[in-house]
Amino acid sequence: MALNEALSALESLLGDRLSRAPGDCDQHGRNETWFPFSPPDAVAYPETTQEVSDLVKICAAHGVAITPWGTGTSLEGHAVPLQGGISLDLSRMNRVLEVLDSDMQVRVQPGVTREALNEDLRATGLFFPVDPGANASLGGMAATRASGTTTVRYGSMRDNVAALEVVLADGRIIRTGSRAKKSAAGYDLTALMVGSEGTLGIITELTLRLHGQPEAISSAVCAFDTLEAAVETVQLTIQMGIPMARIEFVDALTAEIFNEANGTDFPHKPHLMIEFHGSDAAVAEASERFGEVVADMGGADFQWATTTEDRNKLWRMRHGAYPASIAHRPGCMGLVTDICVPISRLAEAVAEMTAEIAAAKLIGPIVGHVGDGNFHSVMLLDPDDKDEFKRAKSVAGKMAKRSLEMGGTVTGEHGIGMGKIGYMRDEHGAGWDVMGTLKAALDPQNILNPGKLVEQKP
Amino acid sequence: MALNEALSALESLLGDRLSRAPGDCDQHGRNETWFPFSPPDAVAYPETTQEVSDLVKICAAHGVAITPWGTGTSLEGHAVPLQGGISLDLSRMNRVLEVLDSDMQVRVQPGVTREALNEDLRATGLFFPVDPGANASLGGMAATRASGTTTVRYGSMRDNVAALEVVLADGRIIRTGSRAKKSAAGYDLTALMVGSEGTLGIITELTLRLHGQPEAISSAVCAFDTLEAAVETVQLTIQMGIPMARIEFVDALTAEIFNEANGTDFPHKPHLMIEFHGSDAAVAEASERFGEVVADMGGADFQWATTTEDRNKLWRMRHGAYPASIAHRPGCMGLVTDICVPISRLAEAVAEMTAEIAAAKLIGPIVGHVGDGNFHSVMLLDPDDKDEFKRAKSVAGKMAKRSLEMGGTVTGEHGIGMGKIGYMRDEHGAGWDVMGTLKAALDPQNILNPGKLVEQKP
Ligand SMILES: Cc1cc2nc3c(=O)[nH]c(=O)nc-3n(C[C@H](O)[C@H](O)[C@H](O)COP(=O)(O)OP(=O)(O)OC[C@H]3O[C@@H](n4cnc5c(N)ncnc54)[C@H](O)[C@@H]3O)c2cc1C
Ligand SMILES: Cc1cc2nc3c(=O)[nH]c(=O)nc-3n(C[C@H](O)[C@H](O)[C@H](O)COP(=O)(O)OP(=O)(O)OC[C@H]3O[C@@H](n4cnc5c(N)ncnc54)[C@H](O)[C@@H]3O)c2cc1C
Repeated sequence: MALNEALSALESLLGDRLSRAPGDCDQHGRNETWFPFSPPDAVAYPETTQEVSDLVKICAAHGVAITPWGTGTSLEGHAVPLQGGISLDLSRMNRVLEVLDSDMQVRVQPGVTREALNEDLRATGLFFPVDPGANASLGGMAATRASGTTTVRYGSMRDNVAALEVVLADGRIIRTGSRAKKSAAGYDLTALMVGSEGTLGIITELTLRLHGQPEAISSAVCAFDTLEAAVETVQLTIQMGIPMARIEFVDALTAEIFNEANGTDFPHKPHLMIEFHGSDAAVAEASERFGEVVADMGGADFQWATTTEDRNKLWRMRHGAYPASIAHRPGCMGLVTDICVPISRLAEAVAEMTAEIAAAKLIGPIVGHVGDGNFHSVMLLDPDDKDEFKRAKSVAGKMAKRSLEMGGTVTGEHGIGMGKIGYMRDEHGAGWDVMGTLKAALDPQNILNPGKLVEQKP
Repeated sequence: MALNEALSALESLLGDRLSRAPGDCDQHGRNETWFPFSPPDAVAYPETTQEVSDLVKICAAHGVAITPWGTGTSLEGHAVPLQGGISLDLSRMNRVLEVLDSDMQVRVQPGVTREALNEDLRATGLFFPVDPGANASLGGMAATRASGTTTVRYGSMRDNVAALEVVLADGRIIRTGSRAKKSAAGYDLTALMVGSEGTLGIITELTLRLHGQPEAISSAVCAFDTLEAAVETVQLTIQMGIPMARIEFVDALTAEIFNEANGTDFPHKPHLMIEFHGSDAAVAEASERFGEVVADMGGADFQWATTTEDRNKLWRMRHGAYPASIAHRPGCMGLVTDICVPISRLAEAVAEMTAEIAAAKLIGPIVGHVGDGNFHSVMLLDPDDKDEFKRAKSVAGKMAKRSLEMGGTVTGEHGIGMGKIGYMRDEHGAGWDVMGTLKAALDPQNILNPGKLVEQKP
């Protein structure tokens, strides 16, 4: 059988770094949310680009599916090996290869996590800004075009990947991009690979852009009486050009959940969490101007986090919103939405989401990277209640449709995986066929993460 | 004959907006630099997306080549219809469709020029920042992934195009991107189209990101004794995180050329031209810190342009560097280089370029968007002196190779067209084949701007 032949060739290649242990396969068949378990036939742990290339050639020769795996934190079932085959776990390719500090760049292997990278960079005065809440791998973050709380200032993976090394579906190794700050040399293969979710190639090295650690940082949290007041504060702050490094919305229920998880005593009201980066003078100026907007919008309970420790506590709390929400309803499973709308429609979109959740009698705290127009509801579902699940899917579907009507997108940052594939036609029309054409051109056998992002071709 | 059938179908479609007048064909067969004349069989002036789609369908049915034309200012022979056929002139699709001021975006047709757009936006407090020297069309700028003096702060077309409408090689109309600030919904077709030089599709509409007109602007020019001192000043300014809106280098010869063209009296030395944007306080802080760096590096003859008029004069002079250089050697033709290197290698690269030009006994003033590591020499060549041309090509080739050795790119902003196609293999290796695969998948008949960017498939 083709699979067995492939597995024995892979065993010769990788030795005990090809694992068929049930525990390994089990772990790589699960996901963070509600998608069904679907294990690979084996998990491969390559250590070099050459090994990845050799592995892909073997799988290509036998038509065996390969699904890359970073840290498995993606939320739309991205890394689940739907057709079995090989789960390609990149966690052993976890070296920071070269800090290019005078160019503010770093070369890393794909399995380095963002926390490990920033730990490594600590002494350089530089940092890598993109931060999905989870401690994801940089390869996985590039593959999902991740973003997060600091994207409003520093951009997403789209903006912070300068160059890639990629193994294609036939085992060829290519390099995309360069270390120059810009280039007009042909099609932007880097951008094509970023966000391709392991369906076009396997990222084996990344050159990332770094940023200088700001001279001054100031964070705050403040409460509003209504979600409209909170969100309009965001819109005004953007229009006034006040330079934010972070601006996060959490709704009243999330404030409660924070209190449960962290022993804080936030009022049960919508809040904004904000941070400014810059010179002492710039941060002071921005904080003052922001304070004025908040006062105008009736915001209150302003708390500034001035020490590093207080600041870290604040953002740990924000980053812990997802597990804290899950813990709020013990035994529940989360269904996470991720729409992103033009800033002008944000207040309306968040209000509609809130109303839809209430109308469907669901529990769904809302948080968002509102500076980008991006927000999530984590709908907390009883895994045994099919009707609840149906209602949640219906709310998610309605809001996805509304995001498109507002000129937005069905996913600001989590990506498509298998969970959002049903919205791709609505969002892209014939553009989705173009994606299928590109996929078929680069992976004609459909062995790279089959069943995700593009339409399954027979 | 297929061509004649296509032309008569196109005449029925467009009436007198299909022109076979020799003057029209002549104009659309020329280019800004040294590439040979190659006229189209006809020039089409569509006015709507539907007309573009119908036109493409007719050409596809008869296998007739289509070369889009914006304003024809590209420098690598991009818009020259190498195989004849149709020159698709987009100048009549020149409407600003919708200013989305609360989202800081604008929808435009591709034939709008950047100056016309900024004229239109004047009353809104917003502006579109990307500025290649020429008054190019926004469609052409997207197609070449243009950038310019302000890219160091505001990014290039890669960063400032939010969404596109594109007519594909089979006439299908797709929409890429959205009005949301970010998205993780599948392959980044917007980025694939930006920089594709009319070889993958015809851009019929763009949604662009706008920026707020800064509260304060301050510009200056200052002289240095050596080019190393000037370029190291740039490197230091970047490392210190001083936020520049523009930082341009001009060499001693260009300073002379400025004097000839503008009646100024700059010392015959390398200069930096710089601009800061921001609040009054931020601009004052940046100017002061920059002044200190310049003083440390031995810079002198500091002239601040404080009035709008003085500032405009300064940048008009900079933008006029190309025609002024051509005028410096009457009757000459220009061969323009465009390498872009990591900032850490910039001083070395500019020095090598200067030495190569001198060794080859050529006249080649150097200017550059040095904040991005990008610089140009305009080599001023006697059109009748074949040996001079050969020497210039050899210098350009050597420096292209050096840029790659330094981790850079053979073109920071001008693009590939036909002029740089010979460097694509060196820069991208097997990645260039991937570009060819994408081209073949989206334009199997090779009718969109054939002969440019990718390898000609038989
Ligand atoms: C609590 C929590 C909070 C989150 N918050 C955010 C957020 O704010 N923003 C955000 O963007 N995301 C967020 N996420 C989602 C997730 O963290 C991101 O999608 C992340 O980028 C996934 O990285 P990973 O290493 O876990 O990738 P995985 O989940 O392992 O894989 C993701 C996809 O990328 C592919 N892949 C992985 N590595 C490679 C590689 N080297 N080459 C090619 N393809 C590869 C996989 O095949 C899969 O399709 C959150 C998740 C959790 C659990
Ligand atoms: C004096 C001078 C200074 C310059 N300085 C700069 C600079 O600083 N930075 C910079 O980036 N460039 C610079 N350029 C080059 C040039 O201005 C840019 O390349 C510009 O983007 C070209 O735009 P255009 O409208 O003239 O396009 P054209 O030259 O008409 O076309 C360029 C390419 O784009 C394609 N194209 C045009 N419109 C479309 C469309 N709607 N859809 C699909 N394809 C299309 C064409 O087929 C062609 O391949 C300069 C040129 C001159 C003459």
